[in-house]
Amino acid sequence: MQQLFEKEVYVERRHILKKAIGKGIILLTGNADSPMNYTDNYYPFRQDSSFLYYFGLDIPGLVGIIDVEKDVEAIYGKEADLEDVIWTGPMPTLQELAAQVGISMVSPLKEVAAFLQSAIHHKTAIHTLPFYRADNKLRVSSWLQMPIDLVERYISVPLIKAVVAQREVKQAVEIAEIDKAASISAEMHVAAMQFARPGMYEYEIAAKMEYVALAAAGRLSYPTILTINGQTLHNHYHGHKIQKGHMVLADAGAENVMHYAGDLTRTFPVDTVFTASQRDVYNVVLTSFEAAVAALKPGVAFKDIHRLACVKLLEGLKNLGIIRGDVEAAVEKSVHTLFFQCGLGHMMGLDVHDMENLGEAYVGYTDAILQRNEFGWKSLRLGKPLSAGFVLTVEPGIYFIPQLIDSWKAQNKLGDFINYEQLENYRFSGGIRIEDNFLITPTGARLLGQPLAKTVQEIEEMRYAARYQA
Amino acid sequence: MQQLFEKEVYVERRHILKKAIGKGIILLTGNADSPMNYTDNYYPFRQDSSFLYYFGLDIPGLVGIIDVEKDVEAIYGKEADLEDVIWTGPMPTLQELAAQVGISMVSPLKEVAAFLQSAIHHKTAIHTLPFYRADNKLRVSSWLQMPIDLVERYISVPLIKAVVAQREVKQAVEIAEIDKAASISAEMHVAAMQFARPGMYEYEIAAKMEYVALAAAGRLSYPTILTINGQTLHNHYHGHKIQKGHMVLADAGAENVMHYAGDLTRTFPVDTVFTASQRDVYNVVLTSFEAAVAALKPGVAFKDIHRLACVKLLEGLKNLGIIRGDVEAAVEKSVHTLFFQCGLGHMMGLDVHDMENLGEAYVGYTDAILQRNEFGWKSLRLGKPLSAGFVLTVEPGIYFIPQLIDSWKAQNKLGDFINYEQLENYRFSGGIRIEDNFLITPTGARLLGQPLAKTVQEIEEMRYAARYQA
Ligand SMILES: [Mn+2]
Ligand SMILES: [Mn+2]
Repeated sequence: MQQLFEKEVYVERRHILKKAIGKGIILLTGNADSPMNYTDNYYPFRQDSSFLYYFGLDIPGLVGIIDVEKDVEAIYGKEADLEDVIWTGPMPTLQELAAQVGISMVSPLKEVAAFLQSAIHHKTAIHTLPFYRADNKLRVSSWLQMPIDLVERYISVPLIKAVVAQREVKQAVEIAEIDKAASISAEMHVAAMQFARPGMYEYEIAAKMEYVALAAAGRLSYPTILTINGQTLHNHYHGHKIQKGHMVLADAGAENVMHYAGDLTRTFPVDTVFTASQRDVYNVVLTSFEAAVAALKPGVAFKDIHRLACVKLLEGLKNLGIIRGDVEAAVEKSVHTLFFQCGLGHMMGLDVHDMENLGEAYVGYTDAILQRNEFGWKSLRLGKPLSAGFVLTVEPGIYFIPQLIDSWKAQNKLGDFINYEQLENYRFSGGIRIEDNFLITPTGARLLGQPLAKTVQEIEEMRYAARYQA
Repeated sequence: MQQLFEKEVYVERRHILKKAIGKGIILLTGNADSPMNYTDNYYPFRQDSSFLYYFGLDIPGLVGIIDVEKDVEAIYGKEADLEDVIWTGPMPTLQELAAQVGISMVSPLKEVAAFLQSAIHHKTAIHTLPFYRADNKLRVSSWLQMPIDLVERYISVPLIKAVVAQREVKQAVEIAEIDKAASISAEMHVAAMQFARPGMYEYEIAAKMEYVALAAAGRLSYPTILTINGQTLHNHYHGHKIQKGHMVLADAGAENVMHYAGDLTRTFPVDTVFTASQRDVYNVVLTSFEAAVAALKPGVAFKDIHRLACVKLLEGLKNLGIIRGDVEAAVEKSVHTLFFQCGLGHMMGLDVHDMENLGEAYVGYTDAILQRNEFGWKSLRLGKPLSAGFVLTVEPGIYFIPQLIDSWKAQNKLGDFINYEQLENYRFSGGIRIEDNFLITPTGARLLGQPLAKTVQEIEEMRYAARYQA
């Protein structure tokens, strides 16, 4: 299943990285298999995205090392022997694998330790990236013969910044892959909207969506949210029966064979049509979505687009009588966070939240534009000015969370702006989100993937056709 | 999705464990979420099977501690706060969760460390199980304030033996769950046999099988093997196109909602019928399978049934002219390992290879019956005498591995028994395996799950019906 870009892609990427780092050693530890319920029963292998970006090889247990000054690039790994061939079939040699990504030097994995210790001995700087898997941290700790805590000193801000600067601007070959991933993701949502019927369980629809990703030789890019309780933001429970009157919020995407992500959300009625009040709230979210998309272009800070989306949400809620007063002032006071507790979007690429392991301070913000830490704003993963080549999601939503409403109402919090009496009529209205994926172009933005039903009319037509014309 | 047995089941299990251990502290660390490509993008949560067996709760980040002498049982964990409710919805309290499994004492997770350190200070023995996830090892290391390597001293053979003695004899409530998992697994194979057509890719059929598990609110119990190269034993590549003349070997099973496993293998022709030589080899495997199943009963050592299956395989290959001489003598010399390199079966339960993390020496063997370490025999996971209540797989196979054949042939290895000239005619015949799941009863064995097509005729009928009567 291993697929690769042309080897020049990887050579060029490493060339740029070396120039940015200038000297020392770059250590990129590939991922190993991740045990499920015992060592040899592992989850589907997922290579580290930065390793994949610079070294391409989608195989567990490899290490990539670049000696910047000496301009030596090497892959460390274990060669297959006859016993391996019996169990796993004929394998290319490490040399053959490395050659596919433009690397001529390979070494046995066990030599990583001596190489790194010698570098430390010679006071050569070692640059590595933050750890998110405990086993990799343990491996590096044993190579360096150093307690776990001290290993973190080799996490390098210059390396993080260089990697972010490169990976955040997508190359043409990457955009083609994200387009494919987003199209598979759109097919997943079409399958859900066509398949869902009153009386089904949420997991049956989630299964249908995952099948579409798997049948396209892909997988899920993140655990599917598929729920009648859309107001619960990170909801991975799929045990409810869906009934007329409910809406289903489906947030799901595919990772394609090249490991690029799609990330789409749609909210649709279990019935063929929305109720009047569901339609009203839906259109508030849609108006906010469209305003945000229209604002996407290079140079605009995404935090300002987030703010615009919040203003549009409150304008819509004002029309429904839930909000009163000046909506600009209301956003200043963070009134919107009662309904929209999270961020408008995030970077997307090899990771669905692209480079999240490298830190939001670098991926989503800059030294000049810092992440705010109040409720709501602290969940905005992306704030910095956009550049052509960025790929991101736009995903406004309205979430009626009874516990949060009760907590605010008890204090009459921001009561000048919020009509708590009218809000009670929407208390059990759940959550609605609309999410698509965009490429920032020199002049604006382009939708990635095939277009997917989004207006009330488009969604109702699809639901109706599936029910009565199948 | 959390489902539980009656709380008395867990109370009783812990009662038996406490009696077996007698004194000291039993520490069972539940699993945490396992990161895929960054911390918050995790694989589907899989609880540790022993934690699930004794403490039932299917939630990440819990710890179960039993103070045997004081007869105190406690669950350590983190309570949800309002912020958690916003993201994950309303959650029961730890107290409510623990009560469902008959435990009244709960404590904040951060108190585990002090409790364990105090136990060490008072020289109270701590018993824990082998680690298979690096993060759990790191957690225990930090609780004990002890370097990673020293943590292993708390892995307790008495605890391992007590857990194996309990978990290897399945309770009625467990057998009912394994029956369900095996039936879902059988449906997966029916789906594959009905769906597969010449020109499809392997991953399309694997996706169809996984869908059946997901749509039943389950998941895969292990990564699916679905391949036209059945001779490659651990083959997780799904990128080939299947064509007439190929056979597809599918080794796949479901884990049901209660986390019990099924594990079935079938080998079927891409065409509607097997070729004559495929049918011949298939029937050799089937005869071996049936002989092994007929021999299952309490008191018989599984290593002897493995040996019986090997004799039957060689008898069949002798009829095909591949083997000559006395087949009993040939098995003594391990001639069968050229064709059958692995074991006849393994224990199955909450894990597909049940309790594999506890060690084959305890799960599959006894102090009196030790695992052999020659090629072939060393891959037999189960050798010990069977008892009523054991659940296991029977899975003989014949695998023509060109590299292995060449390696033996070059030395004319066991040339008195092997007709290498005749073997060349089967060089590219691939691999065939048949696998079902059985419960050992007081008088013999019972098939678990709904019966699945197994004879040449049954399989050909299913393939034909799917192709021409759909
Ligand atoms: Mn998103
Ligand atoms: Mn098996």
